[in-house]
Amino acid sequence: MSAIEDVVRELSRLPGIGPKTATRLTHSLMRGPKEECLRLARALTSLAERIRPCAQCGNFGEEELCSICRDPDRDAALLCVVEGAFEVASIEGTGQFPGRFHVLGGRLSPLDGVGPDELNVASLLARIRDSNDAVREVILATSPSVEGEATAVYLEGVIRPLGPKVTRLARGIPMGSDLEYVDGSTLVEALAGRREM
Amino acid sequence: MSAIEDVVRELSRLPGIGPKTATRLTHSLMRGPKEECLRLARALTSLAERIRPCAQCGNFGEEELCSICRDPDRDAALLCVVEGAFEVASIEGTGQFPGRFHVLGGRLSPLDGVGPDELNVASLLARIRDSNDAVREVILATSPSVEGEATAVYLEGVIRPLGPKVTRLARGIPMGSDLEYVDGSTLVEALAGRREM
Repeated sequence: MSAIEDVVRELSRLPGIGPKTATRLTHSLMRGPKEECLRLARALTSLAERIRPCAQCGNFGEEELCSICRDPDRDAALLCVVEGAFEVASIEGTGQFPGRFHVLGGRLSPLDGVGPDELNVASLLARIRDSNDAVREVILATSPSVEGEATAVYLEGVIRPLGPKVTRLARGIPMGSDLEYVDGSTLVEALAGRREM
Repeated sequence: MSAIEDVVRELSRLPGIGPKTATRLTHSLMRGPKEECLRLARALTSLAERIRPCAQCGNFGEEELCSICRDPDRDAALLCVVEGAFEVASIEGTGQFPGRFHVLGGRLSPLDGVGPDELNVASLLARIRDSNDAVREVILATSPSVEGEATAVYLEGVIRPLGPKVTRLARGIPMGSDLEYVDGSTLVEALAGRREM
């Protein structure tokens, strides 16, 4: 097995990258300076060796607690519950969320054998119940899919009795889209959630 | 700079991968087994350390001559001239080409300062002139762009006097496409190159 085939095969394992894209990426790496290819290799080695889940929220980080949980300026009373660490990165990318996160590690999917025990639900409830943070509001930011909705409904049922307000991300027309292409159920949500101007 | 940001930044340098895709790929690597991430890192390190251009044709390989130039079963009298090593991989992927290759390393582009001296043209002519292979046919497989066409026309002018037949990849309707979406100049080529059934 040649070095080229090795890289193509490994890149093809990544989501959304087929053999053709993997070949194109590999050739781009070979055409570029050797140092660039080595830099990517070193970065991946550090990633594998240094990254671990945060002991508190499940987000990826390099220490016992992730950078968000360590940051004293983040509002510990506002908790955003997401399915995965990727969503943490998306929301952090907006720079508009002052609170902290809790990563479920998936969503409820009974058919695939994923119940509450397979997700980080116990740690979420413990965090709300036991913390000195006095969590004021829990934002459920699971996906707007059937399973994501079911997860949100389940979580609302177990979180509300503990005291905090439970909210859900607004559904509606995505910014920059054309009304012509918006599907019916999104339109229904957008009508139901309409706001006075 | 964290290990995550490092990987995202390095992946974003690759063609067709923006910051969002790079973030998604990085998260996919973090979610997967650590060993997979390390395997990709090792493959990239080998790529950087072992790959070099073939001394004869310019294709990428791990030895003085690439695997195609070393293969005694390849028809040395049939030479396919391509712009880059990626096209070698594409044509090899079909499994239908019995000859050998010559990689130009680009295409003529006077505005960007790329003339014949910047491409592997001298080595191509020397290969045709001096080799014991008696090159019978040179297939010009440059891109069907203005610059690719100009490169082909230039090469035809310098190769034909040396003896071999000079051919060009057929232009026409791509397989699987819908005639409705084929552009005018492709249609013109397809009409001009029509073949009896």
